Amino acid sequence: MKTDHDFMRLALDMAGTAKGKTNPNPMVGAVVVKDGQIVGTGIHRKAGEPHAEVHAFRMAGEHAKGATLYVTLEPCSHYGKTPPCAILVKDSGVKRVVIAMEDPNPQVAGRGIRLLREAGIEVEVGVLEEESKRLNERFVHNMLTGRPFVISKAAMTLDGKIAAYNGHSKWVTGEEARKNVHELRHQTDAILVGINTVLADNPRLTTRLETGAGKNPVRVILDSELRTPLDALLTDCSEASTWIAAASDADPVKAKALEEKGVEILLLSRNEHGLDLKELLAEIYQKGITDIIVEGGSRVNSAFLREGLIDKFIVYIAPKILGGLHSLTPFAGSDPERMGEAVDLRIEKIEQYGEDLCLTAYPKN
Amino acid sequence: MKTDHDFMRLALDMAGTAKGKTNPNPMVGAVVVKDGQIVGTGIHRKAGEPHAEVHAFRMAGEHAKGATLYVTLEPCSHYGKTPPCAILVKDSGVKRVVIAMEDPNPQVAGRGIRLLREAGIEVEVGVLEEESKRLNERFVHNMLTGRPFVISKAAMTLDGKIAAYNGHSKWVTGEEARKNVHELRHQTDAILVGINTVLADNPRLTTRLETGAGKNPVRVILDSELRTPLDALLTDCSEASTWIAAASDADPVKAKALEEKGVEILLLSRNEHGLDLKELLAEIYQKGITDIIVEGGSRVNSAFLREGLIDKFIVYIAPKILGGLHSLTPFAGSDPERMGEAVDLRIEKIEQYGEDLCLTAYPKN
Repeated sequence: MKTDHDFMRLALDMAGTAKGKTNPNPMVGAVVVKDGQIVGTGIHRKAGEPHAEVHAFRMAGEHAKGATLYVTLEPCSHYGKTPPCAILVKDSGVKRVVIAMEDPNPQVAGRGIRLLREAGIEVEVGVLEEESKRLNERFVHNMLTGRPFVISKAAMTLDGKIAAYNGHSKWVTGEEARKNVHELRHQTDAILVGINTVLADNPRLTTRLETGAGKNPVRVILDSELRTPLDALLTDCSEASTWIAAASDADPVKAKALEEKGVEILLLSRNEHGLDLKELLAEIYQKGITDIIVEGGSRVNSAFLREGLIDKFIVYIAPKILGGLHSLTPFAGSDPERMGEAVDLRIEKIEQYGEDLCLTAYPKN
Repeated sequence: MKTDHDFMRLALDMAGTAKGKTNPNPMVGAVVVKDGQIVGTGIHRKAGEPHAEVHAFRMAGEHAKGATLYVTLEPCSHYGKTPPCAILVKDSGVKRVVIAMEDPNPQVAGRGIRLLREAGIEVEVGVLEEESKRLNERFVHNMLTGRPFVISKAAMTLDGKIAAYNGHSKWVTGEEARKNVHELRHQTDAILVGINTVLADNPRLTTRLETGAGKNPVRVILDSELRTPLDALLTDCSEASTWIAAASDADPVKAKALEEKGVEILLLSRNEHGLDLKELLAEIYQKGITDIIVEGGSRVNSAFLREGLIDKFIVYIAPKILGGLHSLTPFAGSDPERMGEAVDLRIEKIEQYGEDLCLTAYPKN
């Protein structure tokens, strides 16, 4: 372990172990190196706890003098829950700072770097920048858009079916892939389904990890007419919160009955396609949701797709062929006329869970 | 290169370079090794030409005495177009023969091995047996079933669509994947589409390789009512043969008109689902077709699937989402009630062509 890349890679790897724990903050790792030896390390473990640099300099103590700091994100320059890290770095005595990426937070955005340079510290920016941006894709998106990062998750057969015509879908994928989905829920603030999925599957959408202690995402139901039955499993809010997104003219009596069970109702405007999804995303972001899994069905998936609101696609593919003219597919909605109308993606990753594949893709633009 | 595995791997790799050229024969490679040195090599290049062992022993000459022969398939014991290789091996003076797999040909099936053992030669069978069976999956299938090896090929978007509702499908995949399809055609005896594909796309189904000299597969159209237009591109038989599979009660006048253009009509029985596909496969096998690509549409694909007639699945997946409730999917047909009715596959290979993925899978049973 000798090069800038090596130390930055270590900082990124350490930071990534806190995935899902730091929201709304980014994941950050820091490594202090003197004469090729690591003298301090730290990561940001959880929102409200010290930043990565604080841990790293605590460990380094006097050894920081003349050392190099590797940090995955530009040190903050503003007073938040903790004092600005840029000040801490400046006072630490390091002579060089290597930063993977600038902080996209408009409150920071280069100011931390400037502060360090003005203090006479050598600053290099952009080492493993792409990797760092990917690691904090959720945070970067939040900062740039003021909306949660939207992950579309679908599980389909090799011929593109998510369920039989009647909605029967147990199970498309095998146990290992389903375990992975629970890991994803554990790392994400919220999960969204449409009312049709509630009526067909009566899901719980809670997190069941093998280790037991899973974090439940907030469960969001798109249900403009408040058709969610009062005895649906999702109305049991003892384990996890449930928010129902309904139209502003939805039945207030039904709303009251759901609220009495602990469900929160979010009243939204309608647009020509149904509920205003951008309004929904802005509203739940205000309520602290920084990322959300959209788990369909196909109408809901298509509505998010059509408005360009999906930031990441996770598609599990099971090695089986279902067939069926009316079997359900992951994206349906209004019919395109030409293949050229498809939304172009870039496949980033192919993983295997048991016998199933898992493809991760991003919109090309 | 020292172990039995190493030499057999070489023999298999050499044999595989003749893919598509040896039909109806298998691909076979042979290596003669004496004191760790290769003294003879050969492959079966083409049906009608010498078997692999003949080339290898010609090269080895006197060096074969006391040597070891590695051969990917049991030497033949019957008089065909060439005299039995088992006799040649016996007379060569080798003291040991390593064979990847027994010949599935009922005319050989262990008799070659017995002949060698009875001559006092040490024979070992089963080195890289699975690889050898995979290499000659087409030949093995032919021998065991008396039918062509059926390859289902589909190209779909990441949400499982092969075309818009109106059949528009240009293009699902990119250039590199489409080039690979032409490579596949070049290696395969026949290609089959349904009449709906003919009417929608008016395809040529010929092979266009970058090097120019592609072998055209026989083009088979499933067209029970003989609806193929007389001016369809497929009725031009100057470059490649076209066979139309029709019901025995199809219009004889239309049949005559098509035949005058050079098209061959195969009259088949009907069963409850349409044309009798098993009868079709048996008939074209008799006519020399040892493997065939079924290229859909979704009705044709589903018909082959339902009868358990697909031996290998090749699915190209393009990184794009089309959506559309009525967009076409690779397998449609009658609607299953439960996810458990899906046909289970085993994914064997994942390749990338440009931005597209290509999955190769086999039925589990």
